[in-house]
Amino acid sequence: MALIGILGGMGPLATVDFMEQIIRLTGAARDQEHLPMLVANLPHTPDRSAAITDGGADPLPALLAGIDLLNRNRVGVIAVPCNSAHHWYAQMRAHSEAPLLHIGEVCAAAIAPQVTRAAVLATRGALTAGFYQAALVERGIEPVLPDPDTQQAVSACVAAVKADRLGDAAAHLCAALDALTAQRIEAAVLGCTELPIAARELEMREFALVDSTLELARETVRYALARGWNRPA
Amino acid sequence: MALIGILGGMGPLATVDFMEQIIRLTGAARDQEHLPMLVANLPHTPDRSAAITDGGADPLPALLAGIDLLNRNRVGVIAVPCNSAHHWYAQMRAHSEAPLLHIGEVCAAAIAPQVTRAAVLATRGALTAGFYQAALVERGIEPVLPDPDTQQAVSACVAAVKADRLGDAAAHLCAALDALTAQRIEAAVLGCTELPIAARELEMREFALVDSTLELARETVRYALARGWNRPA
Repeated sequence: MALIGILGGMGPLATVDFMEQIIRLTGAARDQEHLPMLVANLPHTPDRSAAITDGGADPLPALLAGIDLLNRNRVGVIAVPCNSAHHWYAQMRAHSEAPLLHIGEVCAAAIAPQVTRAAVLATRGALTAGFYQAALVERGIEPVLPDPDTQQAVSACVAAVKADRLGDAAAHLCAALDALTAQRIEAAVLGCTELPIAARELEMREFALVDSTLELARETVRYALARGWNRPA
Repeated sequence: MALIGILGGMGPLATVDFMEQIIRLTGAARDQEHLPMLVANLPHTPDRSAAITDGGADPLPALLAGIDLLNRNRVGVIAVPCNSAHHWYAQMRAHSEAPLLHIGEVCAAAIAPQVTRAAVLATRGALTAGFYQAALVERGIEPVLPDPDTQQAVSACVAAVKADRLGDAAAHLCAALDALTAQRIEAAVLGCTELPIAARELEMREFALVDSTLELARETVRYALARGWNRPA
């Protein structure tokens, strides 16, 4: 039995959202056509962004413990629906027998080819880590980062989703997107898995929103269906 | 680290719904106050209802393999968000080191004490298994079972949720609830974890709907919070 391994709980609602995208994208007509998953939902993992920017507790031991747990149970691939955790992607990959998808890479690859300027909405930690900026520049896309006030709104949105205050979260995200509208961007990367949950409460924008949770789910489903994991052994 | 073990995938959307109820009921303000879970989402488990009523493939080996997987990873309690699978509750419990909650028992216990007649909406398999009827009778509640046409609508609702056709699912459930309105019931047990997903698309009824997913989530959260599993070790 080949299982999709999910290292989650960062945060828990984002993990559930990611699983739901996988289920919807599988397009199954009955239970037995769906994809098996093993989900380690480990919310006690220390805050990733605070560790990167403020010297907070190191999440790497908890991340590696989760990777170990999934490998012990012989998952066939691992997805981590938390962007900031990808600051430790190299360490997690080196530690894992199963291949590890990279949320930032798959998300950057999903931006339409005509886009030349894209905003990156993410935690302060993920922006400090810099993997989104590098992935965009590599594709010839100029990354546009929020000013401090706008970043404050993005961070407040993330915290509100983690506390299940979706109305507040949507208001914060709306303020951030309004501020970015003046920046002549053609796309905005929702580079934190809490942001798409808030975005679903909002109206469409004149620029495209690139949903990192959805793009990671698409890649995960593609990987698993190509290997026939939806078919019972 | 104490983990909540979830044996799921029966079906996958119901598992995600169950996890979401756990997350919401935990009432945490940030990731690190949430409850850790290990979720074995195993949709290839043979159809439980077909095995009970039509001699379909036996799901017990797959159920026990899932129970084994969760125990190998030392979960502290196991919840199975699939009512029909509780036909094999005794075998799963005997096989498990971790305690196993019973969805039918916690759901029946959640019915308001003044209720004397309650409909049971469930798969044909779960009704044949009979644990809901027994749990209601034990509490002095008369179980009311759907007639064949109404049961057909309930089964169609369950199948539609498993195929992610929520509009169809809601229409089938609405037809079933309309038919039951004539039966002088005071409550209807949604005794299949697909049904609450369809019920959320509907308007309120004059009788209470008792949501087996929500009641199992309440009991699971109560169990875990009482043991402090929301606090990092």
